[in-house]
Order: sequence, then structure tokens, then C-alpha cells
Amino acid sequence: MAPKGERPRTIVLTLAYEGTNFLGWQRQKNARTVQAVLEDALQQILGKPVKVTGAGRTDSGVHAEAQVAHAAIRSAMPLKTLHRALNAVLPEDLLVLSLKTAPSNFHARYSATRKRYRYVIWNRPHRPLFDRTRLTYVSTPLDLKKMRQAARLLRGRHDFKAFHSAGRPARSTRRTLSSLTLRAQNGMLVIEAEADGFLYHMVRRIAGLLLEVGKGQWEPEVVRDLLAGKNSVIPPTAPAKGLCLAKIWYVKIKRR
Amino acid sequence: MAPKGERPRTIVLTLAYEGTNFLGWQRQKNARTVQAVLEDALQQILGKPVKVTGAGRTDSGVHAEAQVAHAAIRSAMPLKTLHRALNAVLPEDLLVLSLKTAPSNFHARYSATRKRYRYVIWNRPHRPLFDRTRLTYVSTPLDLKKMRQAARLLRGRHDFKAFHSAGRPARSTRRTLSSLTLRAQNGMLVIEAEADGFLYHMVRRIAGLLLEVGKGQWEPEVVRDLLAGKNSVIPPTAPAKGLCLAKIWYVKIKRR
Repeated sequence: MAPKGERPRTIVLTLAYEGTNFLGWQRQKNARTVQAVLEDALQQILGKPVKVTGAGRTDSGVHAEAQVAHAAIRSAMPLKTLHRALNAVLPEDLLVLSLKTAPSNFHARYSATRKRYRYVIWNRPHRPLFDRTRLTYVSTPLDLKKMRQAARLLRGRHDFKAFHSAGRPARSTRRTLSSLTLRAQNGMLVIEAEADGFLYHMVRRIAGLLLEVGKGQWEPEVVRDLLAGKNSVIPPTAPAKGLCLAKIWYVKIKRR
Repeated sequence: MAPKGERPRTIVLTLAYEGTNFLGWQRQKNARTVQAVLEDALQQILGKPVKVTGAGRTDSGVHAEAQVAHAAIRSAMPLKTLHRALNAVLPEDLLVLSLKTAPSNFHARYSATRKRYRYVIWNRPHRPLFDRTRLTYVSTPLDLKKMRQAARLLRGRHDFKAFHSAGRPARSTRRTLSSLTLRAQNGMLVIEAEADGFLYHMVRRIAGLLLEVGKGQWEPEVVRDLLAGKNSVIPPTAPAKGLCLAKIWYVKIKRR
């Protein structure tokens, strides 16, 4: 039997990060990524390599308010101590919001049932100042009514192939966009999207399409063609900095 | 008579800046200050040196949502063009919110009747992430009731000598603190102070005192001693990054 300190535990971390100075989530050679910085911090504290699995790979420059990751660790360190040690070691743009144990069959990616992303547009004549790293600046007025019409057509279960960027193959490009809302407040336009899963660049392409519609470049009806696979246009990928992973829902997992 | 382009005009600028990477407002040798960056941008656009006078000298690291400055310029350039050119030339942490003409006897400092500063404290167990450059982090719980008692004693016309840091002499240290409020929201504590004028470090020392009271280190009654000139304690200067110049009021000035 392994000594007490070596009993493996699955831990679940809820993370917040400002994506500006990260080259995305996934570990890459010679790049500052969230996964690498987190794994290095865990190794520094626990004295052995730890592999961390994230719910999803956010792109370079994309932020997270509540990214979720899991890891199997072998350490008797109380979680509260580990949590504090992590936040002391991690850089100021990465923070562990919560740290808990989970059943060993919990998986940050495969146990997720739904995710929410937020895309925020600064829609005033002058550029943004204080939150400029988390806003996409669009100075021209936007037609919110038309954008909402396009959003209505996007909601539901569809083949979102037209909103899927090359680079990361997906078994299926069908997804259920259960919610897509637009809210104007204080000169900002907040787009929130919820789905059972998102394709590579899907939210940024949805934001890109909505912006084209808002600017009057495209009519809302273009959505029908896109979802029908008639790729007459390609939705542009809106800038990464306006995007934030806001929430992830999970299935209730019983301990085995 | 001077040519049209050379007719002097007084312009008033409302400015926002994130103070993090500025060594305060005032021009200093070999330092990145708001005044210097702004004057250099004006010179670059107008082709001649311009002296800018601010309503007040914010310290290194202090932010402004609406700093006001005036300058006399000799140029026929339409204000709208100058405004756009300025925001195109200025760095991303400095922004001209508005640019107007004013009577020649307008003075950003001496025509001001009242100012509002905001001091924001992040009061949660874990450190702040997204707005970390504009928040002062205090992890220990604060006694809001006692802080409000202290604030009540501070309001009104008093000699604020005990809240005045050395380094900038003041003719009088009497000021009217017309408003001092505390508001708890989303794990943050927002202190707002309005006065006819503020002494050097006055808001940061008020915040420092309120924090000591909130932590239970001092009783609210210490304010009475301080205002009576019984300097048994010295209010600590709270960190610059939590402070923001929020608003300036002016007398109505008639064109001469």
C-alpha cells in the first residue's frame, strides 16, 4: 500500500486569467501559456511533475473568468495550503479561484455539459482606456436590432461548420447554441453565448458575423445560408481580446 | 494684427489615464509623466511647444477618469481634427475625452470649485485579477460600520493638517470635505470623497485611516484627535493604485 502522502487525488481548479500576455491555454515549446505556468507552479510546490487538463483550449489573448481544469496529484498537502501556495507562486495575471477534490472519473473537458462565453465590444467614438485589453473597439454605430435578428437565427441546434476555423479537426460540427444574447450598456455591447460545446473560433466568428450585420455590411438572413452550408461569405474572426470564457457547467458525478 | 492661424485660443481638455505607467502628472526630467506625454503630443501635432496646466498633480500610479487641463494654443486647426489627432498620437494609457474652447480667463486649477476622488479596495480573501492595477487589495474583513463612523467625523470643514504629507507646502490646510461615502459592492469597497480642494496625499491618508479603523487597529474616535491637531497617530498613506480622480466641478466663466 502506498504511504498516505502518495494517495492519488483528483483536484479540480477554477481559474481566472487575463489572456493578454499568454499564448493561449495549451503548453507549447518556449511559450508562456496558462497550462505551462500552472503546471510549473504545481511542480514547484509539490516537488514533482503534474499534468493539468483544461476544459477547453482558449486562444492566445482570450480571457477566462472561470476556466476549469483537473489534475491527479499525489500529496498529503491540505487543499487550503495548496490553494494559497499556488496563488502566491502564480503570476499576477493568473489566479486560482477555487480548488476542490473530485471523484477520480471527473474530467474537466468530458464532464462539461455547457459553456458560456462573453464577447464585449466597446462601441463609442473614442477608443477604450481602462479595460482596453478586454474589449474590442468598434467606433461605428451598430444596428442592435439587426444583430438580434441574426442572433435569433443562430440559436438552436445547427451545423456550425461555417463558424469553424481550420486547424483543429472536430468529429462533428453540429452544436446546440442554447442561448445567444446581446445587451447594450454604458457604451458597450455584451454578447453572451451558451452551447453544449464550441468549435474552434466559433464564438469569435459569431461575433464577427454579428458585427458585419451591425455595421450594415451583411443582412441577418445571411445566417440561413451559412447554416445551410452555402458558404457565400466567411464570417470574420473577431479579435481575441474581446472574448472571455465565463462559465462551465458539469454533470453531477458520483464518487465511485 | 496676427494672421488668423495665429489667434490664441484657450482649450480645455478632459483626460482619462491609467496611472500605472506614468510617474504622475507633472513634467520631470527623464520621466514618463502625463503632462510631458500630452505636451509632446500637442507639439508634434501643432509644430510648436505648448504648455499644459492641469487641475491638480496626481501622484505616480494614480488614475484619472476626468482630469482637466487647459492650454493656450495658436493654431487654426479645427478642434475636432486636433482631438482626433491627439488620440491617434497619444499612447493607449492616455485619452482625451473632450476638447473645447474656453474663455481666456479659464484656469484648470483656479477655476475649479470642487473635486471628487474615488478610492477602491478589493476586499476578498484572494487577490484581484482583472482590475488589479486599479485596486488596493485588503484580504482581512473590514468593519464597514466603524469606517462609516470615522467618515462621519471627517466630513465638514476642518484643519486636515494631519492628512497632509510633507513635500508640497500649502498656504492653508483647512478644507471642506463636503462628502465622504463608503459603498460595499461585489467584494469591493468604494470610498468617494468630495472637497473644495485636497491636500497632498489627503485622500490616500483618509483611505489609510479608514482602513486602520476597518481592520480594528484604531477606533473611529481617533479622527477627533487628528482633526484637533493631537497627532498621537499618523494616518498611513494607502497605495496609489486604488485612487482615481473622478470629477472636477468649475465655476461658470463668462467670456470677457
